[in-house]
Amino acid sequence: MSAQLMSGTALARQIVERCARRAQSLFEEHGVRPALATVLVGDDPASVTYVTMKRNRSAKAGIDSRLVRLPAETTTAELVAAVRALSDDPGVHGILLQHPVPAHIDERAAFEAIAPAKDVDGVTMHSFAAMAFGEPGFASCTPGGIIRLLDAHGVELSGRQAVVVGRSPILGKPMGMLLLARDATVTYCHSRTVDLASHLAAADIVVAAVGRPEFIKGRDLKPGAVVVDAGYNPGNVGDVDFAGAMERAALVTPVPGGVGPMTIAVLLEQTVDAAERVLFNL
Amino acid sequence: MSAQLMSGTALARQIVERCARRAQSLFEEHGVRPALATVLVGDDPASVTYVTMKRNRSAKAGIDSRLVRLPAETTTAELVAAVRALSDDPGVHGILLQHPVPAHIDERAAFEAIAPAKDVDGVTMHSFAAMAFGEPGFASCTPGGIIRLLDAHGVELSGRQAVVVGRSPILGKPMGMLLLARDATVTYCHSRTVDLASHLAAADIVVAAVGRPEFIKGRDLKPGAVVVDAGYNPGNVGDVDFAGAMERAALVTPVPGGVGPMTIAVLLEQTVDAAERVLFNL
Repeated sequence: MSAQLMSGTALARQIVERCARRAQSLFEEHGVRPALATVLVGDDPASVTYVTMKRNRSAKAGIDSRLVRLPAETTTAELVAAVRALSDDPGVHGILLQHPVPAHIDERAAFEAIAPAKDVDGVTMHSFAAMAFGEPGFASCTPGGIIRLLDAHGVELSGRQAVVVGRSPILGKPMGMLLLARDATVTYCHSRTVDLASHLAAADIVVAAVGRPEFIKGRDLKPGAVVVDAGYNPGNVGDVDFAGAMERAALVTPVPGGVGPMTIAVLLEQTVDAAERVLFNL
Repeated sequence: MSAQLMSGTALARQIVERCARRAQSLFEEHGVRPALATVLVGDDPASVTYVTMKRNRSAKAGIDSRLVRLPAETTTAELVAAVRALSDDPGVHGILLQHPVPAHIDERAAFEAIAPAKDVDGVTMHSFAAMAFGEPGFASCTPGGIIRLLDAHGVELSGRQAVVVGRSPILGKPMGMLLLARDATVTYCHSRTVDLASHLAAADIVVAAVGRPEFIKGRDLKPGAVVVDAGYNPGNVGDVDFAGAMERAALVTPVPGGVGPMTIAVLLEQTVDAAERVLFNL
């Protein structure tokens, strides 16, 4: 074990504490409490757990949280209408639609019903393009949290070879765009990639976002690499073989306690940002 | 010289002829002529030439073209208003804002005034995200034309290593997303990339989109690579050393006569698409 741990817990706590102070002064000086509306469709146990965790953290940060629970048999049209109502509600600053929604729903249509100014989870097409083009907007929370974690650990990104394994719309794709915006050379690898090993062997920075337990082995990594594990599989197992990575890499995120807390911290921070933008016409 | 030429001229002509037939039947059966509005700000000679070329091709394809010329000193607000008027005009199906606009103008703001349903040049944030996420929308014309050219030459994309050199919002970035959507493993290289040579040496497919004459040399390429030159520099010179590439690669686009005609063909095709979508409520 030679790598250093990149823990997200302490950094996330700092971010949430700063959110709490900002939320407090918004309330004291302007009578406004940042409000995050969470929409949960169905009762998938993992989603229920995530939502509960996010609501607890919101409360700690002085953010009002509103929960809209809809039955599993909700139609796309009903969900779109519910989300749109929140987009139109001046008392709501941020909207989180818990992913995934039941398979019969057009999730993209539901995401697009989130007003870009309230898209604190960074899931809309607008937010994605804003990340890609360096325009004002919200980051997808996990990729945004990963950049914060890398920065906090002094990881140089410019000119370095970053390999993103996975290409989902709210994780892999925006992750690559944020790294590219920071001048990394970015490679997207995925299920159809033929020679993943050669890409990993050359990668200064690896972000694993595949959702397959211990998919990336220590021996795959370049010695001294920076390894971010954005996977979270049953049994608290990431997408990276943690022990193997610790032997070969320079910096490794733990699972849990790495990327997860950063995701929530960025969600809360962006909710406070959203409230401030409305209040101060930013 | 061993590579085969990937000419765009003949394929573009076929696409434009098909556009002409579709436009003709729209007119005969529904009394509608597809209409493309082009906005040209200032009188940069290259831009004037491009616009003239696009208008000539439009005429050949039976597409009405409307030209909005604005003086070089147009403000962002004035340009946004002019573009928005076209977005609101039911007689206009497609809008092309000739890039680049004078430096004092916020080009992104002007692009975003194009309604997504009329963004036949594929420059809006919506279109970019649609390309990235496989959602309905228009492709950026040059990347879209390149995919068509590769398909016409039977180039397998799935699982192959594609290197995009350049990361502009209307060329490099959407090019990578379209290749990723076709299951290529995609690397974005750019001015800060440290070891471009090693990326090029491993690339099955190279798209050069840097705007530097003969920046990529034949010796940089993997033998048997597919080389697409999206550069167009003064003196009809691309971003790739053509003679060198022809010696080493399997397929190479000429400059001119490669990517250029495809760009215009896709622009016209998407204009006809836009007119049909309005007419048939697609």
